[in-house]
Amino acid sequence: MASVSARGLAAADEFATVRRFFEAVMARTAEGGDVCDFTFGNPHEMPLPGLVAALRQSVEPLREDWFAYNPGQPEAREVIAGALSRELGLGFEPEDVTLTQGAFGAIALAFRLVMDAGAEVVIPVPGWFCYAPMLRAADLVPVRAPLDPERFDLDLAAIEAAITPRTRMVVVNSPHNPTGRIYPRAALEALAGLLEAASARIGSRIWLLSDEPYRRIRFDGNGFVSPAAVYPWTLIDYSYGKVLLAPGQRLGYLALSPLLPAAERAALREAFFSCQMALGWGFPDSVMQYAVPALEEVSIDIAALAARRERLLGALGAWGYRLTRPEGTFYLWGAAPGGDAVRFAEALAERGVLVMPGTLFERPGDFRISLTANAAMIERALPAFRALA
Amino acid sequence: MASVSARGLAAADEFATVRRFFEAVMARTAEGGDVCDFTFGNPHEMPLPGLVAALRQSVEPLREDWFAYNPGQPEAREVIAGALSRELGLGFEPEDVTLTQGAFGAIALAFRLVMDAGAEVVIPVPGWFCYAPMLRAADLVPVRAPLDPERFDLDLAAIEAAITPRTRMVVVNSPHNPTGRIYPRAALEALAGLLEAASARIGSRIWLLSDEPYRRIRFDGNGFVSPAAVYPWTLIDYSYGKVLLAPGQRLGYLALSPLLPAAERAALREAFFSCQMALGWGFPDSVMQYAVPALEEVSIDIAALAARRERLLGALGAWGYRLTRPEGTFYLWGAAPGGDAVRFAEALAERGVLVMPGTLFERPGDFRISLTANAAMIERALPAFRALA
Repeated sequence: MASVSARGLAAADEFATVRRFFEAVMARTAEGGDVCDFTFGNPHEMPLPGLVAALRQSVEPLREDWFAYNPGQPEAREVIAGALSRELGLGFEPEDVTLTQGAFGAIALAFRLVMDAGAEVVIPVPGWFCYAPMLRAADLVPVRAPLDPERFDLDLAAIEAAITPRTRMVVVNSPHNPTGRIYPRAALEALAGLLEAASARIGSRIWLLSDEPYRRIRFDGNGFVSPAAVYPWTLIDYSYGKVLLAPGQRLGYLALSPLLPAAERAALREAFFSCQMALGWGFPDSVMQYAVPALEEVSIDIAALAARRERLLGALGAWGYRLTRPEGTFYLWGAAPGGDAVRFAEALAERGVLVMPGTLFERPGDFRISLTANAAMIERALPAFRALA
Repeated sequence: MASVSARGLAAADEFATVRRFFEAVMARTAEGGDVCDFTFGNPHEMPLPGLVAALRQSVEPLREDWFAYNPGQPEAREVIAGALSRELGLGFEPEDVTLTQGAFGAIALAFRLVMDAGAEVVIPVPGWFCYAPMLRAADLVPVRAPLDPERFDLDLAAIEAAITPRTRMVVVNSPHNPTGRIYPRAALEALAGLLEAASARIGSRIWLLSDEPYRRIRFDGNGFVSPAAVYPWTLIDYSYGKVLLAPGQRLGYLALSPLLPAAERAALREAFFSCQMALGWGFPDSVMQYAVPALEEVSIDIAALAARRERLLGALGAWGYRLTRPEGTFYLWGAAPGGDAVRFAEALAERGVLVMPGTLFERPGDFRISLTANAAMIERALPAFRALA
């Protein structure tokens, strides 16, 4: 008699490479020593004072129901709708926004809010390694569409080729993990046209999930356009875990494009609560909800990230590494010397430097560096990068 | 073109009665005035000092990775495994326990960890009103099995009748919401025998989900036996939200019975992380995880709950109400005078007293009182109960 469900096993299978890597990193960092960890986007400096101050204030109860069931503070939803409206130039109302336990929670909700078992979802490659396992756990089918291999732009022909009569969603991630690419308005408009035509052709609406957790982490004054501004059937997921560099405190949201036709907008607003509750409650802790107004003003030091980017691009570039210059996110992406990212990552690990091999992104010749490592780690790591150039 | 998924709509449909009631309560309490709210198990006194002290300590970062991705602090899992082992007389290891965002998260995980779409799950009536919508959201099928109508004991004949070749799980909730019944060992042993025989007969293992959020809220020195002690294929879900009366701060766990055969125990332990991540991360906030050792020692005042129970049972009993004497939980359950709980609840609401009509539990002749109301509310509410006796 089998024990684990088929969907549970399918999720685990999609995640197996990441899982093994994660456990190896845990084991390696547990050994101690001066490990330079450039793998997951985890903090390597003390938490932001603004975050800690907001938490200190939020844990002090002001009312009897301070820690009662809390399916989304109205004040928090208002603050977010206002900030999103200003940021994206769209008219979000508080009811368009539901608070979630980070982007993970928002994505899990989006997948179930508008799709049933068997639907196909187009995801980018390279791309975040949790889309596929999350889809399998929801009985949905990931369909890979490669990005343009040079610039990592959206490849409309690849997306078009991935669409079938069972397609119900396309995931767009901008700024893009792991390449740092931010898609321009023209590319998003072309995608919107493609999705409009494809929806008409297959007779079912294709939704767009805009995965935007790095939206506020951009370099060089780069702008940002959300797909929600050009395609009405867009759901936005967002996480405060990146900009606060505190993914252990879950806070994010799912938001409807205000351009959605009124009847569908009303139906989805109405469905938020029951779907989210039925998926496992899924609202952030009260402490995080009370902190939203304060946290809207807090961010990691993006200038410091940009400086680390310059330091690594400059040094590694001089030694012959071919790296992409990210427009946003806190990652560097490039080709592993020798063409075998696993071997390269192992050689670096022997020198105390941990990077993420592209196998985790289905690109075994590339690797990713997280700029959330601190400046001292970068300086300590440079000789290892040089030795393996 | 439809917008909300069929499973989302099915979950909303199962929850519609509760949703309407919840919104009516919110509207009524927002009006202000001296409303006596006996509906949901929410706090009506200031949060426990022990909880606030633990939160104050947990928000102070001691390390750079204090708020990093946190899929379950080893220390927290050890504390829980130890406490569970002592409490239930079984040998839990930390790997048998995964931390979740309350019991909601644990139940959502359990449903997907061991079951695929189309499986049937037997749930008690009366019983918690979220089992059915949570099952629908997971593409599972709720099958109602009534409890014994007099004592609210498990009705083995009703459970047996509910089992089909598609049955994969039976939910047991003890202490039982809304009746306060605690099932004795003999009843659980009889159920275990039934499930063992039925599993053999249908050729598929039937799991038991033991929903135990009220496990530590018991009166009169009553003992507690977990189904995990008598049926190896038992998953335990637990929430700290009841004993701390702080459901807005999500903390709970899913635990495997240590009696599970070794191969299945190993397979489920291994599956926890990927399933939980793929379901939307679903680990509690770091602040709550750090607080586990302190929170294990904190509890609402159960003697005060017992005193409120006595006060209400005594007064209402003298006026002719027929109420069940709960062995645990913080609820009173009984027959609505006149036999129509909705009409009774509306008449009470006109007098500023809110109770939960049994329609939410598929028992339209009964009603529930939550003892989480404060003592002053109880005294203020007594004349209304008397007037409608």
